[in-house]
Amino acid sequence: MTDVNAALREISRGVSEIIPVEELKAKLESGRQLIVKLGMDPTAPDIHLGHTVILNKLRTFQELGHKVVLLIGDFTAAVGDPSGKNATRPQLSREQIMHNAETYAQQAFKVLDRSKTEIRYNSEWLSKLGAEGTIRLASKLTVARMLERDDFTKRYQSGQPIAIHEFLYPLFQGYDSVALHADIELGGTDQKFNLLMGRELQKDAGMEPQCVLMMPLLVGLDGVKKMSKSAGNYIGVHDEPQDMFGKIMSLSDELMWNYYDLLSFRAVDEIEDLKRRCASGEMNPRDAKLELGREIVARYHGQEAGDAAVTAFLNQFAKGALPEDMPEVTLERLPLANLLKEAGLCETTSEALRMIRQHAVRVDGEAVESKEAQIADGTHVFQVGKRRFARITVK
Amino acid sequence: MTDVNAALREISRGVSEIIPVEELKAKLESGRQLIVKLGMDPTAPDIHLGHTVILNKLRTFQELGHKVVLLIGDFTAAVGDPSGKNATRPQLSREQIMHNAETYAQQAFKVLDRSKTEIRYNSEWLSKLGAEGTIRLASKLTVARMLERDDFTKRYQSGQPIAIHEFLYPLFQGYDSVALHADIELGGTDQKFNLLMGRELQKDAGMEPQCVLMMPLLVGLDGVKKMSKSAGNYIGVHDEPQDMFGKIMSLSDELMWNYYDLLSFRAVDEIEDLKRRCASGEMNPRDAKLELGREIVARYHGQEAGDAAVTAFLNQFAKGALPEDMPEVTLERLPLANLLKEAGLCETTSEALRMIRQHAVRVDGEAVESKEAQIADGTHVFQVGKRRFARITVK
Repeated sequence: MTDVNAALREISRGVSEIIPVEELKAKLESGRQLIVKLGMDPTAPDIHLGHTVILNKLRTFQELGHKVVLLIGDFTAAVGDPSGKNATRPQLSREQIMHNAETYAQQAFKVLDRSKTEIRYNSEWLSKLGAEGTIRLASKLTVARMLERDDFTKRYQSGQPIAIHEFLYPLFQGYDSVALHADIELGGTDQKFNLLMGRELQKDAGMEPQCVLMMPLLVGLDGVKKMSKSAGNYIGVHDEPQDMFGKIMSLSDELMWNYYDLLSFRAVDEIEDLKRRCASGEMNPRDAKLELGREIVARYHGQEAGDAAVTAFLNQFAKGALPEDMPEVTLERLPLANLLKEAGLCETTSEALRMIRQHAVRVDGEAVESKEAQIADGTHVFQVGKRRFARITVK
Repeated sequence: MTDVNAALREISRGVSEIIPVEELKAKLESGRQLIVKLGMDPTAPDIHLGHTVILNKLRTFQELGHKVVLLIGDFTAAVGDPSGKNATRPQLSREQIMHNAETYAQQAFKVLDRSKTEIRYNSEWLSKLGAEGTIRLASKLTVARMLERDDFTKRYQSGQPIAIHEFLYPLFQGYDSVALHADIELGGTDQKFNLLMGRELQKDAGMEPQCVLMMPLLVGLDGVKKMSKSAGNYIGVHDEPQDMFGKIMSLSDELMWNYYDLLSFRAVDEIEDLKRRCASGEMNPRDAKLELGREIVARYHGQEAGDAAVTAFLNQFAKGALPEDMPEVTLERLPLANLLKEAGLCETTSEALRMIRQHAVRVDGEAVESKEAQIADGTHVFQVGKRRFARITVK
């Protein structure tokens, strides 16, 4: 019983909502190996850390001994959105679908335990369903219930068209849970309606209904919008180690703790301890951030890369060391802002002026106080912000 | 051109609406053999004259050289209404479906020319459609458009559930028209939305869209409700000749002309001539009714039966002949109304009193003037209305 409570605590970490908790507890208590489903639309294979929030939760279930099923929606991807109005549902060739699924799986296995993961394709049962099975499926729900889904409600009320096949997709997703005998389905909070559909259809089929576990959307580097490629605020799992590490070090302290909850594999207790020590001043939050960066880089590039990123960071910033190689430029005497622009350290002179005002420009390690500062002839190391360096010879 | 105009006049007779007339005219002018579709749900095989209104119109097209396709909705009948809420769409076994289709065709061939009729089953293409084809089909229309259908609007607004598969059936019906390359589809006025669906899907498939021809619903014998089994106001095509004939003779004059328009195979001009002669007093409307009765009985029971029904009627009513056998009753002296009730000629004494007031009661061929009329001892032939007779001995 204590084990189940501990498991439930680990499972609940960072979670938005579990429906219903009592049933999840009963499933955990049953001692069975549970089937934990995650649906994946094989449309865009490249994943970023936002996508891994749910993968991490799947990993937790695997560590507790349960089986993960990655459900590739190949059937519906092959159909796409025949009305052509939904850009997130392009029609894909069988080849593209298999390629995307493969790429996705490769990335997912950075997080998941391959031996406890099964990959299934919903064409296995949906291609056998036929028009007849589709009719039967469509009879399970009313138009009014379907229009209760948040986005449908809004679109219907604002007069935006909803094509009838859009009503079929949630039913297919639910039917996947029936076919897989899923015990638990994971998804984002924006998937609530579709996730609950699986419960309804399983009940209707006389099965024990799945529990639904929703994860919050990861906030991007800007601390405002959800992480996404289009918002440009993401950390891709394919990002270079230095870049990945630098992005994590740029997080606010608050966002760092959110990332700890959603991305770290450390135990809840360990994270609580880090938080406590930072709050009491016993630990510098920067050091907690270093450890998060090490863990994430190590996950996607190996332990060595994680350690190297920490060392490089400490050398460069904490010890004030200069980067081993930096651009070398020879320029004629110019006002400081123009020099910075010509050397490529700033995009424009107005950016250069702003950086000077913000005391973010250093010459030979000394902060420049004003745009009027005179630079002596000779060679100097110019630094803008934390990471832009150039060796400029003025003559 | 004159031919097309004459054809169009014949086609338009009794019709509620043609959409669009210009396109129908163009199709007729093309000189092609047109494909004229009528969909049939193989649920209840027994047909009455109400159903034949549309069959008659199909026959007109056949007489003009066109081909009729009776489309049996076997695919959807095999699925039925999986939600079980729609009694008009029960789930049928393949055997029942074929039996009903066969029975229906046998009855339809009393009206249609078998050599210009093709019977098709929509399982031919719908069973190949699959879930994928169903999704594509469902993408052709929006939820908002579907909710514009009269009955859906009412149900949605009044909070009555509409199951999602109900949105699929009109699409399947429309797809049948695509599969058949239908030029014209016939249906009742209550089918307008579904009939137009065929037009939309054909246009979408790059085909010349079908024209839609809607027939009014035939009013039943009561002159009020549409003819239906449940209202008990119908003439079945299996009714006995005498019964069928008697029901037609009981029509009001007004309803008779409506029946002429919708049920008779006489040319429009001939019917106009009958109307004119009855209106001018040159002809007794009863004789027009006799001819309608003869035609209808002959259609379903043969010319001889039609002629015999007319002769029998004329013998009995016009020439005042008594039926060959009638009930014989011996009763004690009673007031006239009670006598009529006791003899079984009226259900109640108040009905008897009403019939007397309406001069609908005769004794030995003489109309009774008042309920006080004295009946002499002995045996008399009592008649109530046109067809109720009894030989009563009063003592």
